[in-house]
Amino acid sequence: MDACYAVPLSSMVDLQALRQISTMILSALLTSVGINLGLCFIFFTLYYILSKLPGNIPVYAPRLVAEGKRQEGSQFNLESLLPTTTASWVRKAWETSEEEFLSTAGLDAFVFMRIFVFSLKIFTFGGIVGLLILLPINYMGTQLRDDSDFQNKSLDSFSISNVNNGSNRLWIHFFAAYVFTGVVCILLYCEYKYISSKRIACFYSSKPEPHHFTILVRGIPVPLGSTCTDFVEGFFQEYHPSTYHSHSVVRRSSKLQILYTDAERLYKRLTQLKNKDNAAQRHRRDGCLGLFGHKVDMLDHYEKTLGNIADNVRIEHSTLAGKEVRAAFVSFKSRFGAAIALNIQEGVNPTDWSTEQAPEPHDVYWPFFSVTFIRRWISKLVAYVACNVLTILFLIPVALVQGLTHLDQLETMFPSLRCILRMAVVSQVITGYFPILILLMFLSFVPPIMIMLSSLQGYISWSQIQKSACSKVLRFTIWNIFFGNVFSGSALYRLTIFLEPKEFPRVLAEAVPAQASFFIAYVVTFGWTNIASELFQLIPLLCNYMNIFFVGESDDDDFEAPSIPYHKEIPRILFFGLLGVTYFILAPLILPFLLVYFCLGYIIYRNQLLNVYVAKYQTGGEFWPTVHNYTVFSLVLMHIIVIGIFGLKKLPLGSALTLPLPILTLLFNEYCQKRFFPIFKAYPAECLIKKDREDQNEPNMSEFYDKLAKAYNDPALMPIKYSGRFGSHKPLLQCSDV
Amino acid sequence: MDACYAVPLSSMVDLQALRQISTMILSALLTSVGINLGLCFIFFTLYYILSKLPGNIPVYAPRLVAEGKRQEGSQFNLESLLPTTTASWVRKAWETSEEEFLSTAGLDAFVFMRIFVFSLKIFTFGGIVGLLILLPINYMGTQLRDDSDFQNKSLDSFSISNVNNGSNRLWIHFFAAYVFTGVVCILLYCEYKYISSKRIACFYSSKPEPHHFTILVRGIPVPLGSTCTDFVEGFFQEYHPSTYHSHSVVRRSSKLQILYTDAERLYKRLTQLKNKDNAAQRHRRDGCLGLFGHKVDMLDHYEKTLGNIADNVRIEHSTLAGKEVRAAFVSFKSRFGAAIALNIQEGVNPTDWSTEQAPEPHDVYWPFFSVTFIRRWISKLVAYVACNVLTILFLIPVALVQGLTHLDQLETMFPSLRCILRMAVVSQVITGYFPILILLMFLSFVPPIMIMLSSLQGYISWSQIQKSACSKVLRFTIWNIFFGNVFSGSALYRLTIFLEPKEFPRVLAEAVPAQASFFIAYVVTFGWTNIASELFQLIPLLCNYMNIFFVGESDDDDFEAPSIPYHKEIPRILFFGLLGVTYFILAPLILPFLLVYFCLGYIIYRNQLLNVYVAKYQTGGEFWPTVHNYTVFSLVLMHIIVIGIFGLKKLPLGSALTLPLPILTLLFNEYCQKRFFPIFKAYPAECLIKKDREDQNEPNMSEFYDKLAKAYNDPALMPIKYSGRFGSHKPLLQCSDV
Repeated sequence: MDACYAVPLSSMVDLQALRQISTMILSALLTSVGINLGLCFIFFTLYYILSKLPGNIPVYAPRLVAEGKRQEGSQFNLESLLPTTTASWVRKAWETSEEEFLSTAGLDAFVFMRIFVFSLKIFTFGGIVGLLILLPINYMGTQLRDDSDFQNKSLDSFSISNVNNGSNRLWIHFFAAYVFTGVVCILLYCEYKYISSKRIACFYSSKPEPHHFTILVRGIPVPLGSTCTDFVEGFFQEYHPSTYHSHSVVRRSSKLQILYTDAERLYKRLTQLKNKDNAAQRHRRDGCLGLFGHKVDMLDHYEKTLGNIADNVRIEHSTLAGKEVRAAFVSFKSRFGAAIALNIQEGVNPTDWSTEQAPEPHDVYWPFFSVTFIRRWISKLVAYVACNVLTILFLIPVALVQGLTHLDQLETMFPSLRCILRMAVVSQVITGYFPILILLMFLSFVPPIMIMLSSLQGYISWSQIQKSACSKVLRFTIWNIFFGNVFSGSALYRLTIFLEPKEFPRVLAEAVPAQASFFIAYVVTFGWTNIASELFQLIPLLCNYMNIFFVGESDDDDFEAPSIPYHKEIPRILFFGLLGVTYFILAPLILPFLLVYFCLGYIIYRNQLLNVYVAKYQTGGEFWPTVHNYTVFSLVLMHIIVIGIFGLKKLPLGSALTLPLPILTLLFNEYCQKRFFPIFKAYPAECLIKKDREDQNEPNMSEFYDKLAKAYNDPALMPIKYSGRFGSHKPLLQCSDV
Repeated sequence: MDACYAVPLSSMVDLQALRQISTMILSALLTSVGINLGLCFIFFTLYYILSKLPGNIPVYAPRLVAEGKRQEGSQFNLESLLPTTTASWVRKAWETSEEEFLSTAGLDAFVFMRIFVFSLKIFTFGGIVGLLILLPINYMGTQLRDDSDFQNKSLDSFSISNVNNGSNRLWIHFFAAYVFTGVVCILLYCEYKYISSKRIACFYSSKPEPHHFTILVRGIPVPLGSTCTDFVEGFFQEYHPSTYHSHSVVRRSSKLQILYTDAERLYKRLTQLKNKDNAAQRHRRDGCLGLFGHKVDMLDHYEKTLGNIADNVRIEHSTLAGKEVRAAFVSFKSRFGAAIALNIQEGVNPTDWSTEQAPEPHDVYWPFFSVTFIRRWISKLVAYVACNVLTILFLIPVALVQGLTHLDQLETMFPSLRCILRMAVVSQVITGYFPILILLMFLSFVPPIMIMLSSLQGYISWSQIQKSACSKVLRFTIWNIFFGNVFSGSALYRLTIFLEPKEFPRVLAEAVPAQASFFIAYVVTFGWTNIASELFQLIPLLCNYMNIFFVGESDDDDFEAPSIPYHKEIPRILFFGLLGVTYFILAPLILPFLLVYFCLGYIIYRNQLLNVYVAKYQTGGEFWPTVHNYTVFSLVLMHIIVIGIFGLKKLPLGSALTLPLPILTLLFNEYCQKRFFPIFKAYPAECLIKKDREDQNEPNMSEFYDKLAKAYNDPALMPIKYSGRFGSHKPLLQCSDV
């Protein structure tokens, strides 16, 4: 299970309790804030101490280790614990300039950090307006008639629910909605502009990269009696004679890849065995779990198996020629040449010769090269349907499993456990802890499932798969956490309101403000501790200790820094943004807590991106359009709720006058899509040609062209580097053989 | 008012009466068929006689006159009336081969005729299934308990309403829906494939055309201190040096155009006056309506005015340089070169340098070249909103005006007219005739209004404007004629069901079958007489006689054959297709009448396209995607109604099992869009390069390139051809001056 979910279990209990009492009093909120601040402080302290321990460097600075800037086992130094260097990581993360950060962490990480910057900007403005103007107005209302003293005031007294029906003060909320939307739109525009300029700037400053010169062609209509290679060569030399450079046809290599993975694993064990030279470990029984059967020399056993694999590889290789997929990476002599072939429909049949920009060579997702256009299209449809069904129906299994944890049901099922179940501690743990644990367990499966669905969808690169999974997880989160909670678990029952769009604002306006205190507590409990546990890295820390304990010192060669799972992080952050935007009018009390979240997040993620994560591939900032779209979605959702609220609050004129707001916002989004989105899809001719001209003065372009010709060969078909007895066979497969 | 609407007024009265009794008996239908067959026969006879009269040749064969194949005043020949040649036009229209038709009338006319061929195919199949299987089943039902004798049977006895609730016979309707949808989809696919192959074939057989070599660039970001011409030249010579040929910047020339139109008109009068040499006509008073003021010599007067205009033109010309619009037609040396510039985003800002394929030079719509991207975008939005508002709210004014014609209201408003209003004839005319006359009058304004809206939308060619107006009129027709009638005038009241999609099938299933007899009568009355009056050409015939009577012989030079208003004709035909598809299951009795309509239409429009209409510009068959989409829409509408019907008929399983049908149909449409639509947007690289290579062997390409450089000069800025005293000035404006 994910580290971020594993930690804040202590605070979950009170969260679940909160759900049940539904409205929260001020003192309870303060208590929760206190507990979670304490938790954060503990995490920070632990991080501060643990990160100084030399054994933990691979956990807290793997990036620096991978780059060779720090050694794994460097000496522990008591001086570093002195208060002078206490907040050094904070200062370092803060002081790194944007340019420096961009060049170190890459454009995607930069875009990721811009989400925090953008959120801080809008919620600072929103916080000022909300706390200084809206909150006092809400508090002055008498609709809820909450006569308890200040400490025991329900949080709803600070929300719009407390403003009197038909009160003219609601017009201030109305203007606040307009002004806030305006400010967010202006900032969205500036941010989009800034990031697109950065994207172009990064392109200008890039070295010649194979993926800028290459396109992927799929659905090649190979005629009978011709091979794919010849046909592609012929076609591009016929129609793009001046720019065509080379191509490599994709082959069905999944079997080979499995063989290679096996070989690699065996080879590693073999070398370990050889190095240890421990006779006891060398002999094992060959039966089930190494417990039964004959005793064999493992060294011999491994070498024999390796030999078998090598034979299999050779057989597999001999049949490879017949396993050509009708797809090829076609490289061109210039970026502009590649762009021409990319943008113009090649053949008369648009489903043949379908082109797309090639990903970076190490970003290619080899296993999935569906042959025909129609199969790709169908798998896309299936993945789309599966994702939506999963998203909509996710609550059913969770509700079922959660239902099982009801005490009375358990008692009837296991009458013998009655006395245990009736103990206060046990019942509290089971009712308060289990449902959330189960929900979290289910939730932690979602990002990997979405990655799987996206990979089924026919994307050809890991980065595209991640980008698509990011949107899927985001939709999932909004549906299941936001709407799931708003409709208090009966989302399925209320699903029908999506078939009656007219009723939508009213139903939302009734349900959303009622959950304000729940979501405030959600920000404090989940948000803050998530961020703190991100810094603490519990799971990698445990793995590291397990590793040291069971395996001993690991190979330095094998060491690989983790990459940040954008598809998991971005939806989480955007979801907090959604909460802020939708609750800005309804319950501005949420904003200070969100601001704390974003401030912490800014510092901590900057630190993590500089020290922990290494980007495996770059999308060139292509996550930003997703962020932009979902912010606009949040705004429109807020407008719909506000329209409903004014209806409920007997201010129909306010409802009517708010109607243009979502329309204007959507038009703004439409304009932004036209103005900026094309920049994120492809580079314009101007840039491409300028870069191509620069290359002409580059001295080592011929070297680059040589590399380009081989860049997109399937790694499974490349010669591998093992030596030793395995190496005494001739290399498994030479690239030139293919 | 339109000819097609003007004629069948006699039958409108009974149509209106039919609306009121709502269900129609068989004998009434047969009477209506008899009357309309009689009308058609009269039209055919009149056409047969009138088309032989030499004076009517400009009406019935203007195309041949324009092509010089027939002379306007050729001798009338009694022999041609002999029965041997009676049906010669039918035979000729029938016998013309597809290839011949294509080369004579062009691809657009060919596509237009394919609508008839396609409709005949699907409704022949539908007719066989409907009449032989569904109709007997419907008739055998007893739901409506109509015990009258056969002649007095209500038409509803032949519709699905008569099948007993919950009857197993409904499963035959269920299978019919699946089989019919399957057949229509297969035919749609074949037709799309056939027409795209024709489009490519037409491109291959075309001569070098300026619009294949040219793109229109808008939103040129001209820097301060530079002219648009220089900047465009510089840009394309920088980024497309090998393919750039020439360009012409667009100028704001609407004032000049007005001056030229004035000059042309005056010049014509002048030459008429000079030729007639009639002193009485030469002198007129210069005051109001030529009745007051001083007597002046008109020859002098006209010449003076013409001189003034020439001066104005010169002044206007001198300021033209400052009136450059930031748009230019950029021509390239090859089609592929133009396609490259078209398909690749040129500048970093995607709203700058926005490119689109240039239309044919004489197809350019000069008046509307909005400067900035944002203004174009806004005008598009405004036109879109206006069109939808007009479509949705059209019924209000009509209903108001129709309400005025209610006799009792008129009586209270004009008490003195009471005795006249109570006369049987007058009341019948007013109640039966006026509402439809008013509706038709309003309807006849729709196509021009849609053309106006489309031209506001920023399209740059007449053909695009017409294409867009075609979709608009189609939407309008479906909404106002189909839904307007189905909801029996209370469409506005029931508008809310579009906000409750769940209710949609049920409401439609209740309302649509009830209107079956109305729409059968609609096909017979409007459809048949429309087609017959299309052949008869009432309005042009009257104009021709008026012309001969008042003006005398017209100039042969001025003669221009009309072009077919696709935006008016295609929606009308597709609407009959929609009726056939939606009523195939509900009331198959409509199909034989539709088949007669499409048979008549096929022969008559073939004749008209061969003899009457001349295409002013070609879209290259781009109307077909519209036809395809609306046929799919009809299918889905049919499915929704069928789902509702099965619900009403207590066959919920049938409803549920029909659900996949619209989904599969939409997926089929999605696939077709991917498979064929790109071919209609642009020509693929393969074709472009092949054509370019053919050109290299063409001897007169240099001539063509010379022509190309001037092809897109604004006609208002070209030198004009008048001689005489006006010609003694130097030509108003030389092209080379600009």
